[in-house]
Amino acid sequence: MEIYRHKTQYYETDQMGIVHHSNYIRWFEEARTDFLEKLGMGYDRMEAEGIISPVLSVSCQYKTMTYFGETVEIAIVLTKYNGIRLELEYTVSNADTGEVRAVGTTKHCFLDRDGRILSLKRSSPGYHRMLEEYKE
Amino acid sequence: MEIYRHKTQYYETDQMGIVHHSNYIRWFEEARTDFLEKLGMGYDRMEAEGIISPVLSVSCQYKTMTYFGETVEIAIVLTKYNGIRLELEYTVSNADTGEVRAVGTTKHCFLDRDGRILSLKRSSPGYHRMLEEYKE
Amino acid sequence: MEIYRHKTQYYETDQMGIVHHSNYIRWFEEARTDFLEKLGMGYDRMEAEGIISPVLSVSCQYKTMTYFGETVEIAIVLTKYNGIRLELEYTVSNADTGEVRAVGTTKHCFLDRDGRILSLKRSSPGYHRMLEEYKE
Amino acid sequence: MEIYRHKTQYYETDQMGIVHHSNYIRWFEEARTDFLEKLGMGYDRMEAEGIISPVLSVSCQYKTMTYFGETVEIAIVLTKYNGIRLELEYTVSNADTGEVRAVGTTKHCFLDRDGRILSLKRSSPGYHRMLEEYKE
Repeated sequence: MEIYRHKTQYYETDQMGIVHHSNYIRWFEEARTDFLEKLGMGYDRMEAEGIISPVLSVSCQYKTMTYFGETVEIAIVLTKYNGIRLELEYTVSNADTGEVRAVGTTKHCFLDRDGRILSLKRSSPGYHRMLEEYKE
Repeated sequence: MEIYRHKTQYYETDQMGIVHHSNYIRWFEEARTDFLEKLGMGYDRMEAEGIISPVLSVSCQYKTMTYFGETVEIAIVLTKYNGIRLELEYTVSNADTGEVRAVGTTKHCFLDRDGRILSLKRSSPGYHRMLEEYKE
Repeated sequence: MEIYRHKTQYYETDQMGIVHHSNYIRWFEEARTDFLEKLGMGYDRMEAEGIISPVLSVSCQYKTMTYFGETVEIAIVLTKYNGIRLELEYTVSNADTGEVRAVGTTKHCFLDRDGRILSLKRSSPGYHRMLEEYKE
Repeated sequence: MEIYRHKTQYYETDQMGIVHHSNYIRWFEEARTDFLEKLGMGYDRMEAEGIISPVLSVSCQYKTMTYFGETVEIAIVLTKYNGIRLELEYTVSNADTGEVRAVGTTKHCFLDRDGRILSLKRSSPGYHRMLEEYKE
């Protein structure tokens, strides 16, 4: 499990006086970028190698509201990986109190430059092993 | 079923050359705002009456990619409503070809100014009837 | 002068209860995209021809506040164009009352795929004439 | 002069393959929030006291392009303050090379809950002194 921290910004709030719900989807991406980078699979490195990893689906359940100025922690867990598809789980919590703000998931595949689905297991055994080892 | 149209903007794209996936969540809100307004339950009117309707959960499955300049249609269906909770389904399609870009859902409840859960059935029978009639 | 209309969205608001000031910069882009498209110089067409048009500078003066649900009109005027640089002026008004919300400017140049500055006058005389004719 | 750091995110990029220009305006806000907080004038504290500080104008000149994954430093300088109006200058640079990405300004005033312009000098002498001392 990796932890990523994000300080909420004024431009993320809405007139309900809380952080707009669409931002959590962006925080998932921030945490995922950070996670893959630490794993040695940074987006920039993968894109340079011609591998893109689009989002197949996203879900988020909002538990409590996040306010401006709060720091949230996004804990990320690699729950599924089979050489072709990757699934991640996210838990967003207030960094001070630990109160859970939201939980969510994203699913991903890997494509080459021509948009064909890649089996990382075959095309990039190094990345494959990294992800295999991280599976919980 | 109501249809809402959105023309994709340059600032919605990302360096993959497609519309960033987080924007679909915002399009759901655009379509929902429009839908509730047509129903006579505009956010502004509800907020003026002290009713807010937070998002409890959101999900989106991405089927095909949306490109800059495309017009998408978001079809919205009220799938569940029980006086307390509301569930909506969204289908995003290319307005010209009808090709489905994504499908998704959102769930909502209703709160008063003090954050207490409202039963619309009891507190706002007018709104309750509108939503009941729209249920598919 | 071309007029572009935008309906403000909930996700554009902030906790001050108004539209966040950064969105006006995006509305300038929406209006500009629309303007260039009507002129026959759509971004997609230009990018396909290998011409990109980065923003060199942007400014915005906020006069009155824009609220959620309001429709704004963005009037766009081509104020300067010399074959190499382009300058546009924007006036954002409430579509119902005409009250001015903001005025702003953007400056642009044209680059080829290798990032070299283009003289549209020489490289794309067709586009050059279109812009020349539009200058006010 | 205060320095604020921001790591650019994938969702901030556009299909030109660079960070979309509208995000710089949001980074100015991030840097300003941080600056005012360090000064003891956090937005949350000021809003709790009934003081809001809207943006009167913003400008940004883009010098070089910012890419995904880059860390930028935003240096902020309080250039003008007269008890009623505040003016800030921002310089965005690549944190590794120091290359300047953009320079910009914002102007602000202070309003009470009823939207009346405040003279901080009279209504909040403590804040007034803080800002006076910081003027460069």
